Amino acid sequence: MNYERFFEEAVDQVHAEKRYRVFADLERIVGEFPRAIWRSEGEAREITVWCSNDYLGMGQHPDVISAMQTAAGRMGSGAGGTRNISGTNHPLVELERELADLHGKEAALVFTSGFVSNEASISTIARLLPDCLILSDELNHASMIEGVRRSGADKKIFRHNDLAHLEQLLAIAPRERAKLIVFESVYSMDGDIAPIAEITALARRYNAMTYIDEVHAVGMYGNRGGGISDRDNLAGEIDVIEGTLAKAFGTLGGYIAGPRSVIDAVRSYAPGFIFTTALPPSIAAAATASIRHLKESQIEREQQQRQAQNTKDQLSTAGLPVMPSETHIVPVLVGDPELCKKASDRLLEVHGLYIQPINYPTVPRGTERLRITPTPFHSDALIGELASALRETWEALGIPFANDRRPAQQRTNRIIPLVTSTAGG
Amino acid sequence: MNYERFFEEAVDQVHAEKRYRVFADLERIVGEFPRAIWRSEGEAREITVWCSNDYLGMGQHPDVISAMQTAAGRMGSGAGGTRNISGTNHPLVELERELADLHGKEAALVFTSGFVSNEASISTIARLLPDCLILSDELNHASMIEGVRRSGADKKIFRHNDLAHLEQLLAIAPRERAKLIVFESVYSMDGDIAPIAEITALARRYNAMTYIDEVHAVGMYGNRGGGISDRDNLAGEIDVIEGTLAKAFGTLGGYIAGPRSVIDAVRSYAPGFIFTTALPPSIAAAATASIRHLKESQIEREQQQRQAQNTKDQLSTAGLPVMPSETHIVPVLVGDPELCKKASDRLLEVHGLYIQPINYPTVPRGTERLRITPTPFHSDALIGELASALRETWEALGIPFANDRRPAQQRTNRIIPLVTSTAGG
Repeated sequence: MNYERFFEEAVDQVHAEKRYRVFADLERIVGEFPRAIWRSEGEAREITVWCSNDYLGMGQHPDVISAMQTAAGRMGSGAGGTRNISGTNHPLVELERELADLHGKEAALVFTSGFVSNEASISTIARLLPDCLILSDELNHASMIEGVRRSGADKKIFRHNDLAHLEQLLAIAPRERAKLIVFESVYSMDGDIAPIAEITALARRYNAMTYIDEVHAVGMYGNRGGGISDRDNLAGEIDVIEGTLAKAFGTLGGYIAGPRSVIDAVRSYAPGFIFTTALPPSIAAAATASIRHLKESQIEREQQQRQAQNTKDQLSTAGLPVMPSETHIVPVLVGDPELCKKASDRLLEVHGLYIQPINYPTVPRGTERLRITPTPFHSDALIGELASALRETWEALGIPFANDRRPAQQRTNRIIPLVTSTAGG
Repeated sequence: MNYERFFEEAVDQVHAEKRYRVFADLERIVGEFPRAIWRSEGEAREITVWCSNDYLGMGQHPDVISAMQTAAGRMGSGAGGTRNISGTNHPLVELERELADLHGKEAALVFTSGFVSNEASISTIARLLPDCLILSDELNHASMIEGVRRSGADKKIFRHNDLAHLEQLLAIAPRERAKLIVFESVYSMDGDIAPIAEITALARRYNAMTYIDEVHAVGMYGNRGGGISDRDNLAGEIDVIEGTLAKAFGTLGGYIAGPRSVIDAVRSYAPGFIFTTALPPSIAAAATASIRHLKESQIEREQQQRQAQNTKDQLSTAGLPVMPSETHIVPVLVGDPELCKKASDRLLEVHGLYIQPINYPTVPRGTERLRITPTPFHSDALIGELASALRETWEALGIPFANDRRPAQQRTNRIIPLVTSTAGG
């Protein structure tokens, strides 16, 4: 066994499958969001970012930055230990209270990432429940899939947002058997929304527990930014709400909110929570500042919705194949992995616009796309510039426009056989 | 199935086993390290922290704090995306270069935590290698155990630091079979050190790959702070070195350093790396400042070693049962979980000293202990205060002193049958 040669070949395999990822080296510029400096081959250029998950630009909000700087200045740069061994800092305690309040739940628990929060919470809940059956949406995020896998519990995958299929699977399980329905509110690659009211009604009827991932919704939906469950006044119907601090709240980390008993059980049993250093006070303080701001302020949410709609309208008017989306996410269909990569490269090199290509396995083959996330800071002028650049790129590379591909576009909404989704990386 | 009642009972079970953890709510005070404000039942008191993993106090170093504040002010509070989708910020690229240089390796890869770095890297390496056999030290950290488990690979556990046992296990595997030896340099609960030179010699003889966890050594050992492998000039003999930014470097995150091919394979294949938001620029910049400082400066390391030795000496002189340790970690034997918890509570409430009790399953039953981590900022006066407070506590609770328990103390060094260790939470 020649180890180095073996790993070289493993990487060659990724190249051969055209899945090799080159990370764009970016330096964002506070006050000029969504502008950033892009470094490549010794050169530095200013570009516009169109695919950030800092959905509301809160990562650059003066209150958030100032909370981070103040906490760092007063309490230092790190937590200095696990939650149990000297790492529970006061801003983190305050953040957990803020999150419980945001979702109207008894308690909340913060993790170092959304990935870990899903993996640790789902696996712990389903492992503790005796003979638990997990019902999992087929398009759930990689972190939820890892949590399901690691629990070792039986699982049934229901077709994406398909209530009849979910009910069928619930109905064949005995009523007294522990059941956990695991799903997302906003699916980030298509921008569609789960039928939460109907899923929670099924959960009540068949005595199942519910776990919702709201990472692409918290901060952005609902009067207080509690997500789709806040907007639709359904938080009380759901057992566990999972969210992130790293997207609309502009910082780092993930969390769950729910009944005290469930939160305490995860806190006490999950290795991925117990054996890891706590988030630094500076991150916790910044997240709290961001949540508090978005609990009160509607401007960011309104402006984001407006500019997302403007983007959809302008790109559609330009003849680009905008995929249907009910949310702030604007997917534009390319339908081929190499063209998708080339389009992204051309947009960056020729037009100074950064939009990462989204290829298999993040989305099904044949639905490769550019996933655009307009923020409140993407002005009408920037949207116009985007529409022109996309048109130029589509023409230069011979990518089909909307009118050229009606049948293909209709095919994309999940009629194609799906691999298990691992959206978002 | 009544879900809430079920989870209440799961938590009752933790209480019944005396393993229920109450997190101390701490607010550290920059400039007064190791002092902190402790909040409990509505009261706030100043106390001294004696169990921080901010081993060198770098989390309060002015250069580190200033790097964090400056980066937050210039680039914002978050990364805004996964590494692949707009989250690779320039300070993170610089940090990875710095880490590769620190360990003399071709490349490095940063994760959001040390836990994730071990879990994702070990599982990915061992899953990629065909029919891999993992040889794992019985006292490896929970995160390494999770990585081994998740890889799905065959594993053999060798007795702690037992070269004969390791060789025996290596010898029975075919030479051409892929083998990965997974171990730590400093075991943080006992403070003992692995025989790295001998383990790497065995790895060469039997054609095995080596993976070392240096989280309790980086920053603190070696002329440049590269860990025990730096101190003993052995980094070149090891394939993959894993470390943390959250202990001696005073920030957050974990990493691996190694051959470019291995790093690139983990980067390309590990879901726990791919599908998670990148570390914020402020954290990356702070970590880089800390590493750069400790590459040059010997003062912190020397002073830490001196005060750790002073602590061992003063506590031994006071008749306290200090357990043998080759490192900066000073474990003091209690030998009973309830007494250990009571000693910790009394130290905090009566003496204003915070030292977390370490009970099963973090350490074997019968070896429950207080784990003390003197830093460069624990003065001789503070050490004297600690010795008196421990004596008073030992007397008040009737915990055996060193002279009372010679046989018990000898028993503690791992002759007791061991559960798989999950040290550090």
